[in-house]
Amino acid sequence: MTRSTDGFSSTALRWSRSGDPFLWVLDQRLLPQSETWMPVRSTEDMIEAIQTLKVRGAPLIGVAAALSLAQTALRGTRADVLVQEASRLRAARPTAVNLMNALDRMVRFVRTNPDPEAIAGEALAIAWEDVDLCAKMAEIGASLIAEGDGVLTHCNAGALATAGVGTALGVIARAHGLGRKIHVFVDETRPLLQGGRLTAWEMGKLNVPYTLIADVMAASVMAQGKIQKIFVGCDRVATNGDFANKIGTYAVAVLAHYHGIPFYVVGPHTTIDPHCESGKDIPIEQRDPQEVRGAQGAFGSVTWAPAQAPVYNPSFDVTPASLVTGWVMDTGLFDQDAVRNGALRMGQPSAARPR
Amino acid sequence: MTRSTDGFSSTALRWSRSGDPFLWVLDQRLLPQSETWMPVRSTEDMIEAIQTLKVRGAPLIGVAAALSLAQTALRGTRADVLVQEASRLRAARPTAVNLMNALDRMVRFVRTNPDPEAIAGEALAIAWEDVDLCAKMAEIGASLIAEGDGVLTHCNAGALATAGVGTALGVIARAHGLGRKIHVFVDETRPLLQGGRLTAWEMGKLNVPYTLIADVMAASVMAQGKIQKIFVGCDRVATNGDFANKIGTYAVAVLAHYHGIPFYVVGPHTTIDPHCESGKDIPIEQRDPQEVRGAQGAFGSVTWAPAQAPVYNPSFDVTPASLVTGWVMDTGLFDQDAVRNGALRMGQPSAARPR
Repeated sequence: MTRSTDGFSSTALRWSRSGDPFLWVLDQRLLPQSETWMPVRSTEDMIEAIQTLKVRGAPLIGVAAALSLAQTALRGTRADVLVQEASRLRAARPTAVNLMNALDRMVRFVRTNPDPEAIAGEALAIAWEDVDLCAKMAEIGASLIAEGDGVLTHCNAGALATAGVGTALGVIARAHGLGRKIHVFVDETRPLLQGGRLTAWEMGKLNVPYTLIADVMAASVMAQGKIQKIFVGCDRVATNGDFANKIGTYAVAVLAHYHGIPFYVVGPHTTIDPHCESGKDIPIEQRDPQEVRGAQGAFGSVTWAPAQAPVYNPSFDVTPASLVTGWVMDTGLFDQDAVRNGALRMGQPSAARPR
Repeated sequence: MTRSTDGFSSTALRWSRSGDPFLWVLDQRLLPQSETWMPVRSTEDMIEAIQTLKVRGAPLIGVAAALSLAQTALRGTRADVLVQEASRLRAARPTAVNLMNALDRMVRFVRTNPDPEAIAGEALAIAWEDVDLCAKMAEIGASLIAEGDGVLTHCNAGALATAGVGTALGVIARAHGLGRKIHVFVDETRPLLQGGRLTAWEMGKLNVPYTLIADVMAASVMAQGKIQKIFVGCDRVATNGDFANKIGTYAVAVLAHYHGIPFYVVGPHTTIDPHCESGKDIPIEQRDPQEVRGAQGAFGSVTWAPAQAPVYNPSFDVTPASLVTGWVMDTGLFDQDAVRNGALRMGQPSAARPR
C-alpha cells in the first residue's frame, strides 16, 4: 500500500485529494440496507456524523476527526482557528477516548508546525497507524483462538469501527483468515443494533460462519458449551484495566465469568486514558430515550413501547478489570498480573495529553 | 365477584354466554398501540391465537384453551371429538406446562362427565382458580418487597399473562397497592418485546413508577445498586426447582447471583410439571428467525439484519434451581432447602397428569 497524504481508503472512510471534499464517510446508520457515502465538508458535518453515529467505533472516530481537521487546514484555516475547531470536534462524544487522544495530538502538531500539508500528513499518519495497530492486535489475538472455537462478540469492533481490520472483529477475522474453523455468535446489541446490523454484515462479507442472537440469548448459548472465547472492543481503558465499551459488555463479562469462559478486551494503546485510574473516572454518555422505546434506521422507524415510557439509556457500561482474562493490545497481550503491575500505565507516549 | 358459568372477565380474556362467540381474547400482539379484542370461534382460532402470541403467558394459555374447549362442548360436540380437540390444543406450544395441565384436567372431566354445562363449569373453575392462585402468590410475594426497593422483572408475568393479577407482576402490583414506594425496572425482553410493550403498559395502567431498559442494561443497573429484588414468572417448573421462562431469564439469574441480589420465581402450582425431574427434561420451543432479524407488531414491521442472517431463536431458557433465592407459589414461599427436600414434588394433585 502506498502511504501518501493523497489517498486513504478503509471500509468506512475515504480520503482523496483529487475530489471535493477530500473526506467521505460511510453512513453506518444505513447499513446493511444501503451502502451510502456521505461527504464531510466541514467541522459541523463531522460533529453531526459522530453524534448521530453515521461514524462510530472509538478508533474510527479519532481518525475521522483528525482527517476532518486536516481538510480544514488544507483550506487555509489559521492555526488558532484550527485549535478551536479541534476543541469542538473533541467534545462531540464524551466516552470514547481515541477522539480526544487523536485531536490532542493534532493540536500539539498544529502548534509546532502550522503548515497545512504537514498537518494533513499528521492526520494521515494517525490513520495509517490505526491500520498497523489493528494488524498487530489481530495477529496477537488470533493466537488465542483454536480450531473449532465458538466465539462470542458484542456490538461492532470491526473494520467499520477502525481505519484497519478492526479490534475484536479483526482478531476473529484473522483467525478465520488463518484457516481455523470457527463459529461466531453475534449479539444484536440493543438498542442501536450494531451487532445485528454491522457485525452480521461484516461477518457475511468475510464469509465467517456466524449466528445472530438477541442479547438475552448469550447466557443460554454459553451454558450449552458453544462459546470458548469472547472478544469485545473498548471505548476507553483506565490504567487499572477497567474499560468502557458498548452497553451490555459488562453483562457479557459477568456471564463469561460465571461460565468460566475466557473474556478478552481488544484495543489499541490509543484507547488507554492515562488520566483515568479506574472505570469510575470514565464519563458515560446518556442518549435519547426514543432509542429504547423502539428502533430507528434506514430499515424504518418503529416505536413499540408506550409513547411516554420512562427510559434509562446509557450508551456504555464499565467492565472491571477483575472480569477480564486478557487485554489484547498492539503492544502485546497482558494478563491480570501484568495489568496490576502497571502494564497499561507505561510506554504509551501518544496517549499522554493535557487536560 | 359472582362466580357463575355465565361470565368471566379478566385483563386479556372475556367469556360471556350472552354473546356469540362466548370467548374473546385481547390480541396482545397489538398492545400497547391498540386494544383489540378477537373472537375465538373454534379450536383453530384458539390454536392460531396461541401460536402467534395473541394469547400468551403460561397460566392464561391454559385458561383460554380450557374455555375454548368448553365453548366447543356447549355447541354439542361429542365427548370423543372433544378429547381430540383437546389433544390439538395441548400441542399448540411445547414449553408452558399450564396448557397441558389444564387440558389434561378437562379431558379427565369430559371422560367422567360429558354434560356440556358441567364441562363449561369445569373450565370456568380453572379460570377462577387461576384468579385465586394469583391473589395468593401476590400476597405471599409482596411480603418480600420492602419500602424503597428497586425491583427488576423480565418479560411479562402480569394480568395479561394470567386470568388474575399476574404472577411476578401481581406480586409487584400488590406491594405497590399496599402503599410501598417501589421502582420497577422493566427489561424490554427481546425479541418479542413483552417487557417494552406489555409490562410497560401494565405498569403505566397501575401507576407503578417504572423505567424501561434494554435487556443489556440490567447488569449495569444492578452494579449501581438500584435493584434490591428480582421477580420473574415461569412457564414450567421441574420438581427439582429448575424452571423454564422467557429467554433471557437465565441471564438475569446469573447477573443477580453475581451481584448478590435475591432472585424469586413466581408461579402457581399448576406450572409445576411432576414428570420433569430437572430442567433438562423441559422442551424448548424454537421460533421464526425473522423475529430476531427485526421487530414486528402493530407498531410496524422492520428488518435491520442482513436478510438471510443465520439466527438462533429459542423462546425460553432454563434457570437452574441453584440460582433461585425463593419459589413464590400459591402454596407458599419455598427456599432452596425446602425445594431440595421435595416441596415441589408433594401435594400438587391438580398437576398430576397422564403421559
